[in-house]
Amino acid sequence: MKRRNRLSLEEYKSGVLSGNRVGLSRAITLVESTLDSDNELAAQLIDEVYEFTGKSFRIGITGVPGVGKSTFIEAFGQLILKNGKKLAVLTIDPSSQKTGGSILGDKTRMEKLSRSVDAFIRPSPSGDALGGVAHKTRETMLLCEAAGYDFILVETVGVGQSETSVKNMVDFFLLLMLAGAGDELQGIKKGIMEMADAIAINKADGDNIDKAKKAKKEYQNALHLFPANENGWVPEVQTCSALKSEGLKDILQLLEKYQLEQKQSGFFDLNRKEQAIHWMHQTIHHFLKQNFYKSPEILKNLSKFEEEVRKGDKHSVQAARTLLNQYYK
Amino acid sequence: MKRRNRLSLEEYKSGVLSGNRVGLSRAITLVESTLDSDNELAAQLIDEVYEFTGKSFRIGITGVPGVGKSTFIEAFGQLILKNGKKLAVLTIDPSSQKTGGSILGDKTRMEKLSRSVDAFIRPSPSGDALGGVAHKTRETMLLCEAAGYDFILVETVGVGQSETSVKNMVDFFLLLMLAGAGDELQGIKKGIMEMADAIAINKADGDNIDKAKKAKKEYQNALHLFPANENGWVPEVQTCSALKSEGLKDILQLLEKYQLEQKQSGFFDLNRKEQAIHWMHQTIHHFLKQNFYKSPEILKNLSKFEEEVRKGDKHSVQAARTLLNQYYK
Repeated sequence: MKRRNRLSLEEYKSGVLSGNRVGLSRAITLVESTLDSDNELAAQLIDEVYEFTGKSFRIGITGVPGVGKSTFIEAFGQLILKNGKKLAVLTIDPSSQKTGGSILGDKTRMEKLSRSVDAFIRPSPSGDALGGVAHKTRETMLLCEAAGYDFILVETVGVGQSETSVKNMVDFFLLLMLAGAGDELQGIKKGIMEMADAIAINKADGDNIDKAKKAKKEYQNALHLFPANENGWVPEVQTCSALKSEGLKDILQLLEKYQLEQKQSGFFDLNRKEQAIHWMHQTIHHFLKQNFYKSPEILKNLSKFEEEVRKGDKHSVQAARTLLNQYYK
Repeated sequence: MKRRNRLSLEEYKSGVLSGNRVGLSRAITLVESTLDSDNELAAQLIDEVYEFTGKSFRIGITGVPGVGKSTFIEAFGQLILKNGKKLAVLTIDPSSQKTGGSILGDKTRMEKLSRSVDAFIRPSPSGDALGGVAHKTRETMLLCEAAGYDFILVETVGVGQSETSVKNMVDFFLLLMLAGAGDELQGIKKGIMEMADAIAINKADGDNIDKAKKAKKEYQNALHLFPANENGWVPEVQTCSALKSEGLKDILQLLEKYQLEQKQSGFFDLNRKEQAIHWMHQTIHHFLKQNFYKSPEILKNLSKFEEEVRKGDKHSVQAARTLLNQYYK
């Protein structure tokens, strides 16, 4: 990617608030930067636009490759745009870290959306192992809100650790599944199903309709084995065909029903406040770890210690204490 | 609790290795101490006995109050003792933090076990909010192993965050459930069911037998919706009556089958190695956070910042950065 010249804080701010996609993109590039000086400026920028954030409906979407996530977002996104709303799609894909992002890929797989002026698609930056990706996604989300986007879809691939982070930054968590694909094939990581506020069984078309209906019943039963959420919401299961744009309106209505109910009960706002406190602590933990793992002393010795612990030559706590002593010295 | 005089490292070590319960208890008290000087000595002690650890079968047991956990452990423990094995029971109960431990309670609720010389029962220390309880439980587990215990049961109440920590320190995770108690009543926190290597449906006696069998089938179906574990193990569901000592042998056999299979496939050892690395990092994170949250500057300002974030006056990242700057200064 070509390095852009750095703008001033004011230029970044007006770029975001203008709602212009180029301005927003540049600000996100700043937020994603790993340079300390950029981080400082990014923090100032977020601070400057913070009063304009918080007005979107934040939706997490997950599902393994093959479930039809791109087709779903493409079709569901059209529906949102048709209602006169602006939509931002952010993707977190830890597996793309090595390829250095997949901008072209994302734009190709959501072709119609990427051509609309009211949609904004942004893949995740290549992150590090310290939870940096989710960290930066949350700040990107705030920038999109300041730029006037009404719906923000945060998409993950459903096989990693990202889902917990995403659950903690969205208002609603939607899980896409397939009917009759064999559960092993679906590869949904344990724990993800339980985060879902709704499950959409995609590809419910043609010969698949009966299987999808059966799966709907099965998942409904499975979800009922778990207790109700604190907010009183009982997760729902729906079938849809993203390819044929069927069942999508029902899902959008479900989301809107959720938003309405939760706002009326006060849980929507309460959840956001708890998430804000959570993120303050997450940010603290992130920087504490970053400071530790990036210090020269630790960079030099960590893998040697890990190997010793793996072999059983050193025990975990002793290794940790020795490293900490080296760090604080 | 009366404060004991501190012993020398050699005295602690021989106390543990002698297999004597008083010696073990004193060493655990050292490990649980919150004094820095005790922590240093405790780390040395663990280091000294480390070569004698690792030979037990580590089993996590969880289930909400009312599921019959004490009765189960009492009866299941008898079975283990009858096989000529030594058993240690460690409990993690975050809710008991305020009452300052419940030694008497634990010994009363497992009366027979507590009278046996081959059983050792130890409740959790009153921990802090920084993950300290699990931290100390893992070290206590190592001491019990050095003292010659063959089975270690780590018991949690199934409503908090402790289960993830316990999952990361045991070889096998057993979830106790009830049939037909209404899922809300069971209150098992989301995500816990998915950690289980087996589910035992307790109180399968009298009028309950049919309901228990039905529940078994339901839970089996629910578990099959999730993909197989990496280690190839498919979680099993069994019914039992701890009160009537029925079905317990089958559960013990299941555990032994698991141990045998996993040892043969190499996953048992692999899991332990991964857990050791995991705990090295967990220990590092624990002390990094402790150092931060206990520093005078942070103690003074944290709640003010939390309140500002909650009100929306400050945004999470800005609050975090300001606190971090105060800390590193």
